[in-house]
Amino acid sequence: MASPLNNTTTSDQEMADLERHDYVERVQWVLNTPKPPGLSQELIGTAVSWRNKVPFLNMQSGLKHELFSMLKATFPILSWCQNYNPNQFKHDLLAGLTLASLCIPQSIGYATLAKLDPQYGLYTSVVPPLIYTLMGTSREIAIGPVAVISLLLSSMVQKLEDPMANPIAYHKLVLTVTFFAGTFQAAFGLFRSGFLIDFLSHAAIVGFMAGAAIVIGLQQLKGLLGITHFTNKTDVVSWNPYNFLLGCSFLIFILITRFLGRKNKKLFWLPAIAPLVSVVLATLIVFLTKADKHGVDIVKHIKGGLNPSSVDQLQFNGPHVGELAKIGLIVAIIALTEAIAVGRSFAAIKGYHLDGNKEMVAMGFMNIIGSFTSCYVATGSFSRTAVNFSAGCETAMSNIVMAVTVFISLELLTKLLYYTPVAILASIILSALPGLIDVNEACNIWKVDKLDFLACIGAFLGVLFATVEIGLLMAVTISFAKIIVVSIRPGTETLGKLPETDAFGDVNQYPMAVKTPGVLIMRLKSALLCFANANFVRERIMKWVIEEEKDSKLRNAEKTIQIVILDISNLMDIDTSGIASLEELHKNFDSNGMKLAIANPRWQVIHKLKLANFVPKIGGRVFLSIGEAMASFSI
Amino acid sequence: MASPLNNTTTSDQEMADLERHDYVERVQWVLNTPKPPGLSQELIGTAVSWRNKVPFLNMQSGLKHELFSMLKATFPILSWCQNYNPNQFKHDLLAGLTLASLCIPQSIGYATLAKLDPQYGLYTSVVPPLIYTLMGTSREIAIGPVAVISLLLSSMVQKLEDPMANPIAYHKLVLTVTFFAGTFQAAFGLFRSGFLIDFLSHAAIVGFMAGAAIVIGLQQLKGLLGITHFTNKTDVVSWNPYNFLLGCSFLIFILITRFLGRKNKKLFWLPAIAPLVSVVLATLIVFLTKADKHGVDIVKHIKGGLNPSSVDQLQFNGPHVGELAKIGLIVAIIALTEAIAVGRSFAAIKGYHLDGNKEMVAMGFMNIIGSFTSCYVATGSFSRTAVNFSAGCETAMSNIVMAVTVFISLELLTKLLYYTPVAILASIILSALPGLIDVNEACNIWKVDKLDFLACIGAFLGVLFATVEIGLLMAVTISFAKIIVVSIRPGTETLGKLPETDAFGDVNQYPMAVKTPGVLIMRLKSALLCFANANFVRERIMKWVIEEEKDSKLRNAEKTIQIVILDISNLMDIDTSGIASLEELHKNFDSNGMKLAIANPRWQVIHKLKLANFVPKIGGRVFLSIGEAMASFSI
Repeated sequence: MASPLNNTTTSDQEMADLERHDYVERVQWVLNTPKPPGLSQELIGTAVSWRNKVPFLNMQSGLKHELFSMLKATFPILSWCQNYNPNQFKHDLLAGLTLASLCIPQSIGYATLAKLDPQYGLYTSVVPPLIYTLMGTSREIAIGPVAVISLLLSSMVQKLEDPMANPIAYHKLVLTVTFFAGTFQAAFGLFRSGFLIDFLSHAAIVGFMAGAAIVIGLQQLKGLLGITHFTNKTDVVSWNPYNFLLGCSFLIFILITRFLGRKNKKLFWLPAIAPLVSVVLATLIVFLTKADKHGVDIVKHIKGGLNPSSVDQLQFNGPHVGELAKIGLIVAIIALTEAIAVGRSFAAIKGYHLDGNKEMVAMGFMNIIGSFTSCYVATGSFSRTAVNFSAGCETAMSNIVMAVTVFISLELLTKLLYYTPVAILASIILSALPGLIDVNEACNIWKVDKLDFLACIGAFLGVLFATVEIGLLMAVTISFAKIIVVSIRPGTETLGKLPETDAFGDVNQYPMAVKTPGVLIMRLKSALLCFANANFVRERIMKWVIEEEKDSKLRNAEKTIQIVILDISNLMDIDTSGIASLEELHKNFDSNGMKLAIANPRWQVIHKLKLANFVPKIGGRVFLSIGEAMASFSI
Repeated sequence: MASPLNNTTTSDQEMADLERHDYVERVQWVLNTPKPPGLSQELIGTAVSWRNKVPFLNMQSGLKHELFSMLKATFPILSWCQNYNPNQFKHDLLAGLTLASLCIPQSIGYATLAKLDPQYGLYTSVVPPLIYTLMGTSREIAIGPVAVISLLLSSMVQKLEDPMANPIAYHKLVLTVTFFAGTFQAAFGLFRSGFLIDFLSHAAIVGFMAGAAIVIGLQQLKGLLGITHFTNKTDVVSWNPYNFLLGCSFLIFILITRFLGRKNKKLFWLPAIAPLVSVVLATLIVFLTKADKHGVDIVKHIKGGLNPSSVDQLQFNGPHVGELAKIGLIVAIIALTEAIAVGRSFAAIKGYHLDGNKEMVAMGFMNIIGSFTSCYVATGSFSRTAVNFSAGCETAMSNIVMAVTVFISLELLTKLLYYTPVAILASIILSALPGLIDVNEACNIWKVDKLDFLACIGAFLGVLFATVEIGLLMAVTISFAKIIVVSIRPGTETLGKLPETDAFGDVNQYPMAVKTPGVLIMRLKSALLCFANANFVRERIMKWVIEEEKDSKLRNAEKTIQIVILDISNLMDIDTSGIASLEELHKNFDSNGMKLAIANPRWQVIHKLKLANFVPKIGGRVFLSIGEAMASFSI
């Protein structure tokens, strides 16, 4: 404080006058703030900033250079392709091939999970990865069909059409859902609405994934056991010991390779190729022993060749369109959540940042184009992305290598898969599930936040015992209920002066904080004082003041509470109900001989208090800080 | 600061060391807080406090005295009855008679609005007011049927049963809804869940009431015009000029008396008895002119006598029970909202406090017992409560006087109402509607809070153009959407030091605030850092820092930002996603050569940061206040 008066000698009285003058001036700072931006200004501001953010909209300064940089922004491959070198390609080739060896059996398995013919899984591992490579920003993510989305699709779409009775109509619906999902994803990205995927909290995803994994596991057990006609209506179960033997032994084989891969990081390729090896071996065994004649279920015919066009199969009229769009929205959000979660975690390891909105646009276009080329919803896979990373991929080129490999297999190898037993597909799906159940993280969530854990368990149990939608709904509801409960049932805290500082702190948090006799300083633990909590807050403060007064009367009959200072520095906004409750508090205090003072109001709040003519009603006792309020009462 | 070292001469270095020691000590205050109460403790605490609050549960210290004070708490009439004197009774008698003269025509009118026979309106003005007088705490509130609840009931129940085709079944459903509404109200009161009515914000109620008034007005116009068979299906309209003439002239008469009553406060009784005078005059005119033979619709037979029992008419099995309970819940909340709003506003004028939970219990029991005695849902009426107050009521005794008068009319006068024209009932209902439309308050809401106004307009338009439920839903949704938007899209603000103080303030709110070169101080405008806003906040802060750095580079190439101090004093809670976003911020800053410091974490937040092992990750840079953080960097 560089006051020029410091050098002159002044009496205490003059100093006090001066301080009084200062405090009056500083009250003016609080009261004469500039007008905060109004709702309309904020909305216009948002619209303008949106305009700037949406690509394709600000092309006025259009030049060749501008166009190329826009192209580069839309297709990041143009950036990294220029410096791509043979050494990088060597790594990507290796990673892509490893990826393909895991991807082929998984794709076939997940297609059966989605109740589609096996070739659709393979198609989905060709076109979407290629599109993503052009537009995506992640270097590690492995695109293709995944278990949870396959489950989600089949569980929701088969309510509209029975995949057994009417596979062609069912397939059309799945393609339409894929188109809607892609459209939603692209729209989220283009309109910067990425926050929608934030609504699924991390805890909810952990619970949801674990629940989905167990549901898939239970479904696949019937495949492993060879129970083909297992519905609720019939208990005619055709049990076959060969199916079980085959499935179990290869499941154990895959799990052993995974165990070896974890023990020794150099053997990372072992668990990655184990599924393919299992498929080859099992197919050979069935072919040689003619086990299909003894009741072992086999895949039979897989249609080979390039993805056929499916533009004419999309259905935009008919009774189910609304329902399909709804399923598309749910699938779009879950798919984005999974992909961006996995993409971000690997980007963080390599130390670069993933642009969420760009990712959404890429995923959206890959699914839209996928729906034109007989693919169902693709996204980033947890397990395959980890394999891609371990195999040392350098760029998204590994996805291209994988897609080309899958394409070649489609052209040449589908006939060889005729004798592949269904039980082996169940083993492959089952073996991928433990990766979806993250018990450690659940424990961590329990430790840090019990309500978060509740959302996690809610999603888990909802998916497990009800449906996927109910699980999601429970998770979102619990998560938002928490936000609302914190907003509508805020606590209050009593503050005391922290010794040797000018700061005031919660007397429970800082046991060394000292209360000033006769003064009660309270702070609201909420960012809003509004219709939903105004009455509650008023009653709570009144109760607190009455208790505090009773307490202080018990201890010391002379000094009862004369001043209540309400620190509203936390309040970001107040509405008419909130202002009314402050007025009522003031009246109640006044009739009990106490004075209410307001400390540290924020911009929006002081503005509204002024509009509602509140400041003169409490005698102008609005201060810059608790300290100033104390000073004004000469305490 | 009374340090003993002040008297000794110390070098600057020693002082700095001392200060350093102080600041280190104070960092320990932040880090070594006691453990905050956990979720389970808070829940147990709530349960215990509930137990203490619910009457009938803490009777351990049971004595005769205890029993009587409990009785007094349940029946407040026992308290005020003891000191009741003849002078008070004189006032209450006058108020009660005035009330009855307004209540009788309104009750008949509102019963037709609820699509019930006229006598049910009168029944509802007998039993519920008596029960309320025993249990309620308000002295002014006038209990009986009201327009909005009548509209609500008929619009929702007639979806289940046609009141024209099957009036007996319809009446049974209305009684059952009344029972459910009463049960919900009593349960809210007994379990202290009064906060449920807080969910309808003041703004929403203003909009809802205005919308309902206009819907009722439009409905009544057809009564005034004598359009009896006016449905959507037919346009055969039997228009009758006598109906219109009769209705209009008495509507004008009532409005003129109200105008006179407003001009001269002594004539308050004139608008209060005008409806009864109109009924008497109109009935006489019809009787004398035999206008009913010329197409004027008349009320015809009204069943007289005391309320018959209706216990056997309640329907708890059948296809509609769930739906009836839902309607009961909606009606219960609207009825409570209206009654408590009107009760509180008059209690505030007389300077006493209304116990919301006790009111709910009283309203609940009055409606439960009402449903046993052929009454439909009663609540506190806006218009009649104002008349009661103006007529100088002293206690709830005026309700007893009114109920007895209505009862006498039911016994003796119903036959006289045979020739009462329907058009006059429409005039009475119409004349009560302007009181429900509060344009001034709507303007006020617009001035203070635009989003509040949106909730108001949403409720208004929803009720007007869709249904009552949609109107309510829109109002509640908009109100809560506001809470959620504020929570998930929080702003951030840059702080500067306020000259001549130790305080820091928003540089936009306080233009005189000074920024320190090389340091960026930011504060979060949110009470939560959680899954729904963590990513948004992280990106926003990063963007801000980058812009600020660009800016400072432009102005002064030497001093770029080296320290970012994040003031999280507003944060009440943080979850795993929030902590992860802080960690990511730290990593990003670190790789750009900046340091992140956290200032003023609250109890729950620092506890969770410690559990998640966050403090060592950012190098222990957690401080008591912004000032301490600045001091630690020797700025």
